Amino acid sequence: MTGPDPAVAAVRSAVRAACADVPPGELVLVACSGGADSLALAAAAGWLAAPGGRGRAPWRAGAVVVDHGLQPGSAQVARAAGAACTGLGLDPVVVVDVDVPRGRAGPEAAARDARLTALDDVARRTGAAAVLLGHTLDDQAEQVLLGLARGSGARSLAGMPARRAALRRPLLGLPRTTTRAACAALGLRPWEDPTNADPAFTRSRVRSRVLPVLEAELGPGVAGALARTAEQLREDAEVLERLAGELLERSAAAQDRSGDAVDADDGVDPRPGADPGAGLDVEVLAAAPAALRRRALRAAALQAGAAAGELSREHVLAVDALVVSWHGQGPVPLPGRVGAVRTCGRLRFAPAPPPPGGH
Amino acid sequence: MTGPDPAVAAVRSAVRAACADVPPGELVLVACSGGADSLALAAAAGWLAAPGGRGRAPWRAGAVVVDHGLQPGSAQVARAAGAACTGLGLDPVVVVDVDVPRGRAGPEAAARDARLTALDDVARRTGAAAVLLGHTLDDQAEQVLLGLARGSGARSLAGMPARRAALRRPLLGLPRTTTRAACAALGLRPWEDPTNADPAFTRSRVRSRVLPVLEAELGPGVAGALARTAEQLREDAEVLERLAGELLERSAAAQDRSGDAVDADDGVDPRPGADPGAGLDVEVLAAAPAALRRRALRAAALQAGAAAGELSREHVLAVDALVVSWHGQGPVPLPGRVGAVRTCGRLRFAPAPPPPGGH
Repeated sequence: MTGPDPAVAAVRSAVRAACADVPPGELVLVACSGGADSLALAAAAGWLAAPGGRGRAPWRAGAVVVDHGLQPGSAQVARAAGAACTGLGLDPVVVVDVDVPRGRAGPEAAARDARLTALDDVARRTGAAAVLLGHTLDDQAEQVLLGLARGSGARSLAGMPARRAALRRPLLGLPRTTTRAACAALGLRPWEDPTNADPAFTRSRVRSRVLPVLEAELGPGVAGALARTAEQLREDAEVLERLAGELLERSAAAQDRSGDAVDADDGVDPRPGADPGAGLDVEVLAAAPAALRRRALRAAALQAGAAAGELSREHVLAVDALVVSWHGQGPVPLPGRVGAVRTCGRLRFAPAPPPPGGH
Repeated sequence: MTGPDPAVAAVRSAVRAACADVPPGELVLVACSGGADSLALAAAAGWLAAPGGRGRAPWRAGAVVVDHGLQPGSAQVARAAGAACTGLGLDPVVVVDVDVPRGRAGPEAAARDARLTALDDVARRTGAAAVLLGHTLDDQAEQVLLGLARGSGARSLAGMPARRAALRRPLLGLPRTTTRAACAALGLRPWEDPTNADPAFTRSRVRSRVLPVLEAELGPGVAGALARTAEQLREDAEVLERLAGELLERSAAAQDRSGDAVDADDGVDPRPGADPGAGLDVEVLAAAPAALRRRALRAAALQAGAAAGELSREHVLAVDALVVSWHGQGPVPLPGRVGAVRTCGRLRFAPAPPPPGGH
């Protein structure tokens, strides 16, 4: 008996493992663009879930195809991807159109956000237990490099999670060469997304120019090393964010013991941390390690309405100086017209007036 | 009145800040290779500490020059660097020869270790309060990229610390262009280390080929972003390592409550964690978050004699599986002839026999 092609087997095995906890009869949706990664994923899911087939997965496999409408002919690409999924035995196959708003976050980020919203939506409508995304180890490595260029710490280097809510990424451990080989072995013709080769997109430059140089100069294992880094930093970020959240609660709760406590009858939510405007105890913050204190301060600034995309390390360090290098300095203005100010041993975040001459 | 050149002023200001806590009369040694970074550093330290000068630093400035003897003519380079330091007013100027052992860690790592040992030695002999190293923001960025290629998590991405024991790196926030400009403004002729351009060295390839591509494709701020990343990951690593150390102590101490406690009379050190062979409580470990548990397991393996340079993420995950995915599996062999084994709810690290047919 000849087994399947090793690449096909690797993709099937990864999908089987990622869906091991899906209850019998439940629907698993593959998000399919028609590209090699998601086509290999769809083929594996279809094979695993085929009724009476050798895959013997107890769940059902369907597909969702998102048409962003960003390129001419995108509707046709979406229809072809949907037809391929049907041909692979997936059912239902849902094709959805989404509008990508032209915001300042850039076309890549806007398309991603719109896609995730659409997937969430279809998952809810179809009652799917999981939505599978085709990101590979190479995508993860590219994500880490993009995060590095931002310089914003562990969270931005932590790449994409293998699971978040209904979304699962079974292929994060497999290189892109495996999904291409699987498609070839199965006689599938993947769609080549022209934006992958368009140097106008940062990600495509990372893929075509940065990673190859890193592999050439640092060794062929760089993509794997970047993916391992992401996995470890994600674990780290989870612990640190939880501890920072606890610190924030403690520093908010500590105010209640001061003479200046918020009266629970005045309509203010009395839960700790629920009203960042009521202030954080500076002593509690100052006693914490820098990594936790600065995370807590960042979270408090965001809760108070600071603009997430613009809140930099420098902003957070300026707020931190109010806690640990206090010499009576004035309010620290933050993006999103929020300011941080220290008064009477408390740090408060409050709406700030627009700067004079600002626009 | 004309102030100094901005680059000269920037270097002076960085050195002044890094030595703000050095007590009056104490000696600060500049580790000088004669290259632009350490020459600019030596010039700044000499100016700041010049008796009766405008720098008005209360400490004394000296220099230490290390001759690794790795290149032909290295003795001459060292003498020239020493003479330059004397010319800049530094006193004493100590030139030391070191032997770089040819180990398997690679010539760069061996030279670094030998240099640090020599610096430590000279600092002790001269009673220096601090030893200043000339690493810049670009060196830090290179260090992060080298760590990325190893894929070994936050610690390897955390770059070089601004301080460790007597060592201080005042220039980590300044780009290399600043030290070069400072030398030019002061009429100093830095030595050009030929290994910096030798593609046989990974670091030189990172400097000459990797960083320029990253800057071209991701934006000119990449070196700064990498350095910021290092700073944040260092903060993170400090918290995580402390918490992992506490977890290790708790899991070692927890055994004492079991029926199988180590008798303090048998010569075993009864301090928690002092005898990794006595075992770690699996329940205590399993209840901890992955990031802390895996760090604790790595530390325990190293304490038991596992080889630090070869202990990989995969090894640690295999040990972790003994804790969280236990199905009766056998001992996990680790590099350095150490094995991890789970018995009676305890994880033990013990010397492992050489593998059959091993060498």
